[in-house]
Amino acid sequence: MAAKGTTEDLTTRLLAGDRRALARAISLVEDNDPAGWELVKAIYPRTGNARVVGLTGAPGAGKSTLISAMTKAERARGNTIGVLSIDPSSPFTHGALLGDRIRLTEHFLDPGVFIRSMANRGALGGLAEAALQAALLIDAAGRDIVLLETVGVGQAEVDVINHADTVVLVLIPGSGDSIQALKAGIMEIPDVIVVNKADHPLTETMVREVRAVLALGPREGWVPPIVKTEAVHDKGIDELIEKLDEHRAYIEAEGTLVERRKRNLRSEVLAIATGRLRRDLEDRIEATPEFADLLEQVSQRKIDPASAASQILEDL
Amino acid sequence: MAAKGTTEDLTTRLLAGDRRALARAISLVEDNDPAGWELVKAIYPRTGNARVVGLTGAPGAGKSTLISAMTKAERARGNTIGVLSIDPSSPFTHGALLGDRIRLTEHFLDPGVFIRSMANRGALGGLAEAALQAALLIDAAGRDIVLLETVGVGQAEVDVINHADTVVLVLIPGSGDSIQALKAGIMEIPDVIVVNKADHPLTETMVREVRAVLALGPREGWVPPIVKTEAVHDKGIDELIEKLDEHRAYIEAEGTLVERRKRNLRSEVLAIATGRLRRDLEDRIEATPEFADLLEQVSQRKIDPASAASQILEDL
Repeated sequence: MAAKGTTEDLTTRLLAGDRRALARAISLVEDNDPAGWELVKAIYPRTGNARVVGLTGAPGAGKSTLISAMTKAERARGNTIGVLSIDPSSPFTHGALLGDRIRLTEHFLDPGVFIRSMANRGALGGLAEAALQAALLIDAAGRDIVLLETVGVGQAEVDVINHADTVVLVLIPGSGDSIQALKAGIMEIPDVIVVNKADHPLTETMVREVRAVLALGPREGWVPPIVKTEAVHDKGIDELIEKLDEHRAYIEAEGTLVERRKRNLRSEVLAIATGRLRRDLEDRIEATPEFADLLEQVSQRKIDPASAASQILEDL
Repeated sequence: MAAKGTTEDLTTRLLAGDRRALARAISLVEDNDPAGWELVKAIYPRTGNARVVGLTGAPGAGKSTLISAMTKAERARGNTIGVLSIDPSSPFTHGALLGDRIRLTEHFLDPGVFIRSMANRGALGGLAEAALQAALLIDAAGRDIVLLETVGVGQAEVDVINHADTVVLVLIPGSGDSIQALKAGIMEIPDVIVVNKADHPLTETMVREVRAVLALGPREGWVPPIVKTEAVHDKGIDELIEKLDEHRAYIEAEGTLVERRKRNLRSEVLAIATGRLRRDLEDRIEATPEFADLLEQVSQRKIDPASAASQILEDL
């Protein structure tokens, strides 16, 4: 754990926008170090200023290339950027996604760009919690825009993406899974839809399909625009930025931003509390020999899972 | 709630294999009726005999058609079947997936086939819990094989599919999202991989890609076979059934089945306990005006989410 003096110093430097202090603070949060939580507590009143944009889509859709292109465009407008990638790591293809990250290297030397990957290490709930705290730290460090990147599969990613002010779904032509998920209502309707790699012959088919799905949705309020991009050639990026600005202006004018943030913060509090309860429960089960017996009886089909759960909750 | 006498009668009829009793029992579980939990408790010692096969894959991969073809083949071998579809329902495309279900209608008149869809109604944790209880009910009703169908997106689906003895991933050629998810390690390596709609020109490309991903995995133990099917023409189904049998024989011989079920039941107990804690927490937050104040202060950036969560947990 960091000493108190160090934490105070870190807080001061982070609020001044120091990149190394920010990196250190995120590591503390990621390591579940109490000093990390103290830091977030200290800087929290200084958050809420950054525009948080979440990008989701299947692996291979080109999200990192898109983020790189967006970063370039936003830097040209004078905005500072923080990129947070929620990076699921595989037990046996460790580093498989590293290739994507390489596309961001052109920004490594720009002090106006902060890039961080957070890997899924064990508990999913833990990752979502840590990522949201990290987003608050980036916000407090004075970044104008926070870009959250997730692969959009798994509850942790969904939890994280729901905390963005604007959610962008990135699709590629010829890949039907995401659009099917959208159609089936598994995925919430995003605020902006990007069809990336738009030089693909099936681009217009994809755009038509997306439009058909959206036509089934509500007729009032914000209608998600479909933006065609070729991120690798910086094509369509200006239009994307324009649509993000429009969405921002819309949610500010309608009061939706305030409502959305209120709902998100409420669910964040609940998620943190539930996560702690669950870890506490697991620790106690681990530490109590009677519970091992109980679980063995479940295995032997003597006590059903729900009754065993009731008994554990009563005993605690 | 059902009266006690009714529950006992229902238990007897369910254990005798009565389809209507089974349908009623699942409804009780789905409605979170205490009589449903009582029923599961009563029948639990009679579970563990069915072979539970989980099928996962993106919407549109043809899972329902595949299940229909597998059902036909298994019925020809004299096995009785229970199909449980975890069916995410969309807020605005309600019934979009109904088309898939229609493929199962040819089995509606066969008493040896029981088919049930469970929709995602609100709480995800609740759906996974209910689905697992329903699977136990089908098992106790004496079905030889339980086929669990999920779309493989979202935590609830993942929770459910992990409870199968054998997990089948259904892919279609030309659709890269699932294979990318597999590659990135977001999805656990399934036991059997089906490339459905294998008349597609990109079939061999897909098979090669899958093989390349599997080559990165462990070299020992079960090597997931890749089966090409055209479910709509009953092609490849015999080979699929054969591979499922082989996997079954393998996990029985290696003791993996017992280990897997033990692990699954342990996580089911934990999931039920955690789900109850979470709902209890939400109810209490709802019922306590001080907590509404606290959440408002989080919105106003006066108290950070983690501190608010701590305070709620302390106060309870």
